[in-house]
Amino acid sequence: MKGKTPKESHTIMNELVLPNDTNTLNNLMGGRLLHWMDIAAAISAQKHCNRIVVTASVDNVSFKHSIKLGDVITIEAKVSRAFTTSVEVRLDVWAQNIPSGTSVKSNEAYYTFVALDKEGNKINVPELLPETAEEIILYDGALRRRQLRLILGGKMHPDEATELKALFFSVEK
Amino acid sequence: MKGKTPKESHTIMNELVLPNDTNTLNNLMGGRLLHWMDIAAAISAQKHCNRIVVTASVDNVSFKHSIKLGDVITIEAKVSRAFTTSVEVRLDVWAQNIPSGTSVKSNEAYYTFVALDKEGNKINVPELLPETAEEIILYDGALRRRQLRLILGGKMHPDEATELKALFFSVEK
Amino acid sequence: MKGKTPKESHTIMNELVLPNDTNTLNNLMGGRLLHWMDIAAAISAQKHCNRIVVTASVDNVSFKHSIKLGDVITIEAKVSRAFTTSVEVRLDVWAQNIPSGTSVKSNEAYYTFVALDKEGNKINVPELLPETAEEIILYDGALRRRQLRLILGGKMHPDEATELKALFFSVEK
Amino acid sequence: MKGKTPKESHTIMNELVLPNDTNTLNNLMGGRLLHWMDIAAAISAQKHCNRIVVTASVDNVSFKHSIKLGDVITIEAKVSRAFTTSVEVRLDVWAQNIPSGTSVKSNEAYYTFVALDKEGNKINVPELLPETAEEIILYDGALRRRQLRLILGGKMHPDEATELKALFFSVEK
Amino acid sequence: MKGKTPKESHTIMNELVLPNDTNTLNNLMGGRLLHWMDIAAAISAQKHCNRIVVTASVDNVSFKHSIKLGDVITIEAKVSRAFTTSVEVRLDVWAQNIPSGTSVKSNEAYYTFVALDKEGNKINVPELLPETAEEIILYDGALRRRQLRLILGGKMHPDEATELKALFFSVEK
Amino acid sequence: MKGKTPKESHTIMNELVLPNDTNTLNNLMGGRLLHWMDIAAAISAQKHCNRIVVTASVDNVSFKHSIKLGDVITIEAKVSRAFTTSVEVRLDVWAQNIPSGTSVKSNEAYYTFVALDKEGNKINVPELLPETAEEIILYDGALRRRQLRLILGGKMHPDEATELKALFFSVEK
Repeated sequence: MKGKTPKESHTIMNELVLPNDTNTLNNLMGGRLLHWMDIAAAISAQKHCNRIVVTASVDNVSFKHSIKLGDVITIEAKVSRAFTTSVEVRLDVWAQNIPSGTSVKSNEAYYTFVALDKEGNKINVPELLPETAEEIILYDGALRRRQLRLILGGKMHPDEATELKALFFSVEK
Repeated sequence: MKGKTPKESHTIMNELVLPNDTNTLNNLMGGRLLHWMDIAAAISAQKHCNRIVVTASVDNVSFKHSIKLGDVITIEAKVSRAFTTSVEVRLDVWAQNIPSGTSVKSNEAYYTFVALDKEGNKINVPELLPETAEEIILYDGALRRRQLRLILGGKMHPDEATELKALFFSVEK
Repeated sequence: MKGKTPKESHTIMNELVLPNDTNTLNNLMGGRLLHWMDIAAAISAQKHCNRIVVTASVDNVSFKHSIKLGDVITIEAKVSRAFTTSVEVRLDVWAQNIPSGTSVKSNEAYYTFVALDKEGNKINVPELLPETAEEIILYDGALRRRQLRLILGGKMHPDEATELKALFFSVEK
Repeated sequence: MKGKTPKESHTIMNELVLPNDTNTLNNLMGGRLLHWMDIAAAISAQKHCNRIVVTASVDNVSFKHSIKLGDVITIEAKVSRAFTTSVEVRLDVWAQNIPSGTSVKSNEAYYTFVALDKEGNKINVPELLPETAEEIILYDGALRRRQLRLILGGKMHPDEATELKALFFSVEK
Repeated sequence: MKGKTPKESHTIMNELVLPNDTNTLNNLMGGRLLHWMDIAAAISAQKHCNRIVVTASVDNVSFKHSIKLGDVITIEAKVSRAFTTSVEVRLDVWAQNIPSGTSVKSNEAYYTFVALDKEGNKINVPELLPETAEEIILYDGALRRRQLRLILGGKMHPDEATELKALFFSVEK
Repeated sequence: MKGKTPKESHTIMNELVLPNDTNTLNNLMGGRLLHWMDIAAAISAQKHCNRIVVTASVDNVSFKHSIKLGDVITIEAKVSRAFTTSVEVRLDVWAQNIPSGTSVKSNEAYYTFVALDKEGNKINVPELLPETAEEIILYDGALRRRQLRLILGGKMHPDEATELKALFFSVEK
């Protein structure tokens, strides 16, 4: 299976914040944004895998800015690393209020997906071949994020998480 | 402000998995579940705070089982700890396929919310008073989860995360 | 087939009133509530029957209080009586406005469902075994409500409706 | 206030049964139909009252035929009687499966609405002036249906329901 | 195959403009109206063809009046001409604001549909037999509109569009 | 007001075709696509105008390929010409079926929008400054398309449509 670059899975999604997406303060509800991010990330993962994909996990997402009714949301997604039968997708989210001219970087997040064949069995995916300096940083960091997911999911003991320890406790070294 | 027990914010939500919630394998899409979980958690947080609340973050969520079209989703939410102007909500999610008689624990997750007054300013929330042994464990763990959120959000240096270090690297001590 | 208690079909659903659920006075539209009640009742009926169920009828529902945008709706459903191939489900609906601290009992209603096998044929359902005093009252009243449904549907002559007559015209006796 | 004929509030609504409107047997869910009927009836009531209207009640509705995915639903609504600040709307519902050429009368129902001014206060509505023989029958029957609603809502004692008794127990006379 | 009159495909659809259908000025979004028009026209085309139909084209539509939240939209559709395997549907759209008593003709439009059998192959449709003077004018104009569609789609050279030329350049003759 | 390039209004939207977007042959309904195209075009027009915009018209759109459930729709939009208070937006639409590896150019279309201030009055918009050869062709063609819209809307006599005549009847010259 031939490897692929992040560019090949690059996906852009724009959404308009409509009334039903907001709470009584006219702010976009976090769950609605998580839903859109999942769809954008799934399209990106599909482009890399050429397969049906299902969400395996979402990493910690924090919502720093309130996004308002009528804002334009832009979600950019691309695969940051491929594992045997799964991919990690990096998401960047912006919110623009066009009439007032404001634009903020709203979120950064990682979703992972598993690739399935038509019977629903896991199937191998192409390798990711990062090209730019930024893509290589994302690619390298994916190991640490994966270790954190495994520890939080109770599938790895913290002692085995070599890369994660190096990041979290660098000053100790 | 009088403290409240977790029972006072206990919220149960049932949803039926409809065609538009599923992918082409007839599996519930992860983002749709994250959206429902956000609504259930927001109702729970509102009950504790008696205020409008907005999502501040969602912790790492993993999706271990595929959930099918027609399944009944049950989401239970209750506040696990209150901080000055925010609360952490613990979620447990089950999926039941009634005609086939199967039921699985699908997810455990934590969402945090900030309480706002009508002008959208942060406002103090009541303390949480855990009662049962399980509620006390969730209450105690909230500090560690908060440190992890702050580190992942770039707002805390790993060295300051005393509780988190104790958990992750207990064997080192 | 072993009988079941009402507790086994007890179902709680919480919904947030969103903009699209409301009219231009920001009041929840009655039809939207009837839709949610149908889903909650169907989940409850499914739990009792362990089968796919379809709505057979809804009894007279009256809407006494206006419910506002942002309110939290709580619907509780449980089977009140089982007949040969159908069940009657009792619903209680509350509306809470959390920031203002108000809560009203909004509706009481009865939906009936028919249980079907995978080919869509009617199929026998377990008996209902009421336990509490309130459940026994609901169970007994189900006969009268059924007679009223049959009369209104043109399937029974009023003279045959012994239980209904006893209720409606007790002073005549 | 000048009276109005039923023709002036006549409203026709067509809807296509889409996947999300159906259960796992591909049958239209009853609650979805109740929702559409409420919108059609509200439009009809608005046309009569020239006011914002809110649903006050729905009478017993029974679902006799299963309606399938892809069917065309036709709902006809017209005001059957006006009271001081409310109207009763009669609904007739058909389901057509066009490729197979079948069409069934699916439901008959009555919804009542209260007319409100912009502050949400009840306000008087025009009288209904029935014209055809069928409209006069619906107009006359409205009194009986109203008495049944009041009895079921606990607002009238059965003894006072003169018109209802005449219908239900005609053989006794 | 027996021909059919326009009356046999006459379809009326009423929709209420809900918050999610509007932009931040509370005006109905054009795309939402185009979506409703497509459903109304498809039902009309189905009635003529007794077949599944798919949209083949929509002609130029202009939106002259702003339509507000809470308005009632009335869409009338009927087949204006049948070709071998397709039909042209004429749509008239009105918007009514009932509390303020205003009503405007909002749009006139033409959608075309192709009839398909269950395998998705094109299939012949009944001829249209116009009856009234207005229906004959619509029937005659359909040829010109078809030529314009073919030219705009790059499938006809302007020189061949005899009927269209006669309309557009009548003064030249 | 400083002019803007087409690049500044370039907007990409990806959507996944879900069950409710399809007919009983599992094909995307045309009206749903027109709705998505309107949102993508409105975002693009907003970016150019920095204003709230409302749809003024959609030009003839034809649907040449059936798009299936689960396909990924990609819509690209950019402003092709600005007039005094309105802009024309060019749309290109692709449909990709990722598991089967197929991708088709599904549509090309033009939507026009009017820019409004907060009171809903028309307001001047920046000029468009085309850069590439393709953008200049789109810019030049906008005059002809505008004349066709005006003629079809009954606001221009065919004789005045100099640019349109040149295109349609070039062989006559």
